[in-house]
Amino acid sequence: MLAEVITIGDEILIGQVVDTNASYIARELDKIGVSTLRITSVLDESKHILTALQRAKEEVQLVILTGGLGPTKDDVTKQTLCNYFNDTLVQDALVVENIKALFKKYNLDLPWPANLQQAMVPSKATVLMNQHGTAPGMWMQREGVVFISLPGVPYEMKHIMQDQVLPKIIEKFDRPYIYHKTLMTYGLGETGVAERIAKWEEALPERLKLGYLPSLGKVRLRLSAQGNDKKEIEAEVDAQMDDLQKILSDITVGFEGETSIVERIAKILMTKNKTLSLAESCTGGKIAAEITKHPGVSSWFKGGVIPYKTELKTKLLGVPEAFIEKYNVVSVEVAEAMANHACRVLDSDFSIATTGIAGPTKGDGVDEVGTVYIAVASPNGVFSEKFMFGNDRFRVMEKATAKAFELLWKEIAKI
Amino acid sequence: MLAEVITIGDEILIGQVVDTNASYIARELDKIGVSTLRITSVLDESKHILTALQRAKEEVQLVILTGGLGPTKDDVTKQTLCNYFNDTLVQDALVVENIKALFKKYNLDLPWPANLQQAMVPSKATVLMNQHGTAPGMWMQREGVVFISLPGVPYEMKHIMQDQVLPKIIEKFDRPYIYHKTLMTYGLGETGVAERIAKWEEALPERLKLGYLPSLGKVRLRLSAQGNDKKEIEAEVDAQMDDLQKILSDITVGFEGETSIVERIAKILMTKNKTLSLAESCTGGKIAAEITKHPGVSSWFKGGVIPYKTELKTKLLGVPEAFIEKYNVVSVEVAEAMANHACRVLDSDFSIATTGIAGPTKGDGVDEVGTVYIAVASPNGVFSEKFMFGNDRFRVMEKATAKAFELLWKEIAKI
Repeated sequence: MLAEVITIGDEILIGQVVDTNASYIARELDKIGVSTLRITSVLDESKHILTALQRAKEEVQLVILTGGLGPTKDDVTKQTLCNYFNDTLVQDALVVENIKALFKKYNLDLPWPANLQQAMVPSKATVLMNQHGTAPGMWMQREGVVFISLPGVPYEMKHIMQDQVLPKIIEKFDRPYIYHKTLMTYGLGETGVAERIAKWEEALPERLKLGYLPSLGKVRLRLSAQGNDKKEIEAEVDAQMDDLQKILSDITVGFEGETSIVERIAKILMTKNKTLSLAESCTGGKIAAEITKHPGVSSWFKGGVIPYKTELKTKLLGVPEAFIEKYNVVSVEVAEAMANHACRVLDSDFSIATTGIAGPTKGDGVDEVGTVYIAVASPNGVFSEKFMFGNDRFRVMEKATAKAFELLWKEIAKI
Repeated sequence: MLAEVITIGDEILIGQVVDTNASYIARELDKIGVSTLRITSVLDESKHILTALQRAKEEVQLVILTGGLGPTKDDVTKQTLCNYFNDTLVQDALVVENIKALFKKYNLDLPWPANLQQAMVPSKATVLMNQHGTAPGMWMQREGVVFISLPGVPYEMKHIMQDQVLPKIIEKFDRPYIYHKTLMTYGLGETGVAERIAKWEEALPERLKLGYLPSLGKVRLRLSAQGNDKKEIEAEVDAQMDDLQKILSDITVGFEGETSIVERIAKILMTKNKTLSLAESCTGGKIAAEITKHPGVSSWFKGGVIPYKTELKTKLLGVPEAFIEKYNVVSVEVAEAMANHACRVLDSDFSIATTGIAGPTKGDGVDEVGTVYIAVASPNGVFSEKFMFGNDRFRVMEKATAKAFELLWKEIAKI
């Protein structure tokens, strides 16, 4: 069962936006057993959209388009669908009602006739009502191939996908079960990992597919399989992954998706009834933002301070001014003091503290740009490490945040 | 001058990663006058890569591929290029040296022969040396069309693009100048904006292209033009944009790219020698993280507190416990008190405070999920607003962060 995703919009082709719709749709299709063969992004021009439709039809049974459904002149998707299906636009009374209801809900004036334009759909289309916007989705069919056109606003697209598109696909098509499991490793390059697992990889059954996903300092290993027997497939992949995890036990940090490092930290802190606080200087709130992304953290996350200015390390945390002057604000001593004081001031069992030079300039510090000290205070004492993260501010903050969770995880796993 | 970007990797087609490489490449090409006609993402399979190469060659003069260059079995790009160019792989001595140097630099053992595999390149290719990884880029040519293959790791790809690919393209091809300017508006829907500017849009010269980019609560308007006379093009677009800005002055927040709202805030605070602090409860560090992304903020950003737990609003900020109990922790009174106390405790001229229920559950609050109070304290007093941001935690935090900057901007613009 194959699909193609076609995303439409000049903004994608000039790099003004990152196309997150395509990856969302591909992921959702994958979950229900539909494999995406290709993702194509084209300009808001009929000619290019038509070519993409024609090519897709030759190879897949399902084509999902996003974008180009707005009421303005730069949006041409509906007209192009009419050309392709030899169809004309007609007004859909239910869409008119939906638009009126939306404007009423938000207490807005109805700017006709532009919004009436939104209620015009190809006569052959089944409308997929958009509860969150004025552009409806459309489901069309031609010689056994299903074409679905969705608005490009991610929030609207996702709701129509979940509420209408996925259930209809499940009902209409026979699909296999697709299963992926991804092991996350840190600290060894792609080649090194490949060497370590060469024997295991050699012996993998043909129907299991291994993918390497290298990125900065880590390699993810994805094992995929598909078939009709869900239980059998999962058992086979899980068994292979158990073996793989044993081979790479020293560099493994867990499986992707199931549990992020924050979720693993949360689970233990909740079970053991322990709490965490933060004292973030050079990470500037990034660790806190990562934590508070997750719901339900208030049972174990007390909060944090961001003493970005040196004087606030004294005022908010109580690290003595003379101590900071003696050791320098970017130092192992100050990092550890910040962590200890955070536990005391914010009344937590654990804490993370960061101090460093994110760059691009050195500031007051005597250390190099990219120097970061991370300290973790726990009931067992305070632990810290010095890191050199390079001279790219964004990467320094990213890496420091990731490392902070790793260090905390190590201490938490001990309790 | 047209290009196609082809990104290769199963991880893209199952939605495991968002393809940020394509948008980066498209943006960089646009800057030097190369228009991307299409972005195609294909599986790590020779057949599909070949089809993409053949199709691209019919329509564009430049094809940039990323991904599939690793040393492991799932990577087939180099072999596919050999098929397409009727070529064979040969060992490149300089790449061997580069790999050795890289391993030496990071003090790693050389895991041969897998890494030697990385030094094998098609004999017809010009190598684009990779200073940050073992997979080299390649520049090949066939019947006037240039094919460039780059590693998929974004950091490595970007360096090769900047240091080698872009300069070579500039040298080899005549390119027009492309200019975009994007006006950001808030608070009016796409249709409403279109009605307001209909007359202006009608009168736009043919060679200027207008794009609407709607998203939650905002519409961006992009005006694009290309040609050979940089000055003339910029003057024409700028003049039209001035008119547009006048028509939409009440809903305009500025131009994209040039200055983010944080940069505009920073500029005024620095000029006026004023400072900012934060007291983030429901935004949990997100506002701080947005600020500290930017370099050089320490001259005006004092820092913040994240009193996620109610008791910390008392302990860190000094908002009396009885006061919080009387008014409820999610209330206009507590938001304003947090803002006032933040200015005092963190010794700043301005502050932002947030308190609310990000969800998905209600917690201790009596208000609905999505209720957020944002207060801004300034030398002119304290101002606050209540918002209802819906029941999606991620969106609540996103919107609250965006609104917080807007409210602050309003107060800062007054000084």
